[in-house]
Amino acid sequence: MKHYTLLLVAGLTTAGLVALMAPTRGHADGEPAAPYVTEIPQGYREWKWISSAHEAGNLNSLGALLGNDVAFNAFRDGKLPYPDGSILAALHYRNVPSDENNKIFGQVQSFVPGAPTNIQFMVKDSKKYAATGGWGFGHFADGKPGAAAFMKSCFPCHEKAQATDLVFTRYAP
Amino acid sequence: MKHYTLLLVAGLTTAGLVALMAPTRGHADGEPAAPYVTEIPQGYREWKWISSAHEAGNLNSLGALLGNDVAFNAFRDGKLPYPDGSILAALHYRNVPSDENNKIFGQVQSFVPGAPTNIQFMVKDSKKYAATGGWGFGHFADGKPGAAAFMKSCFPCHEKAQATDLVFTRYAP
Repeated sequence: MKHYTLLLVAGLTTAGLVALMAPTRGHADGEPAAPYVTEIPQGYREWKWISSAHEAGNLNSLGALLGNDVAFNAFRDGKLPYPDGSILAALHYRNVPSDENNKIFGQVQSFVPGAPTNIQFMVKDSKKYAATGGWGFGHFADGKPGAAAFMKSCFPCHEKAQATDLVFTRYAP
Repeated sequence: MKHYTLLLVAGLTTAGLVALMAPTRGHADGEPAAPYVTEIPQGYREWKWISSAHEAGNLNSLGALLGNDVAFNAFRDGKLPYPDGSILAALHYRNVPSDENNKIFGQVQSFVPGAPTNIQFMVKDSKKYAATGGWGFGHFADGKPGAAAFMKSCFPCHEKAQATDLVFTRYAP
């Protein structure tokens, strides 16, 4: 466990150094690449629950937003903007009927998380992620980060939630 | 805060003593009353997330199951039956569309927790709750516990989930 932790920290540090040392690469459109989250934050599955959400339609998703202590406390206390160090984890799953529950209830009423689809993160660091509103966005499917081109779509959408510091989710009391 | 905590602990202790001292009262049908959970467990809102669920139909509910550390660890590790000390909290809310999210997405797709409806608890104590499978059931709306007659309906339904120690919810990985 300790060995694994050290490896991961080393990995993060190396990534940080590489990011600092690497020249900013231009995109096809001439814009410099904004940094995004390329490593899954440790321990996120044990963070506190902020809210659940169901996205119908093509997404057909059921999941939860979890937050580390910094983020959770800010949500609970209604503190905006979110302080540096806040990390949000959105865990998404297929929205599927629960056959076993429905059998007991005698009707199709119960929908639960099915196969995991992706995990998305928002990491608040107003310096590192200044180009994207102070938030670093992350998207992981099967443990692999989203491609840079895909990651460019996060900020323009979240930017619309200005009143809540780019966060769509509200705290469920 | 300290004052409030002490009051609450005193309240719980008094309730415990009263429960120990009071003679078992017979019901109209002659059955002794099985004990149920009459005090909201402290700190439940900061427990860990086990899963989310949406109940359609008349319930029209969206919520989450949280667990204290004993319960969460057992869920995560697939340990059955749940050890004494496990406590589960099911937080239920109206399932409502999010107008602000849908405006941004350009379609009605996003459903989120609306007004809280009730919080339900399951407390594992194989001695205290021996009459109901080792679980004490609790139901609170507006902070008030469910009536004894209502509470009698919990165990007969949960008893159907024998294979998972009377718990319907599965861990979302």
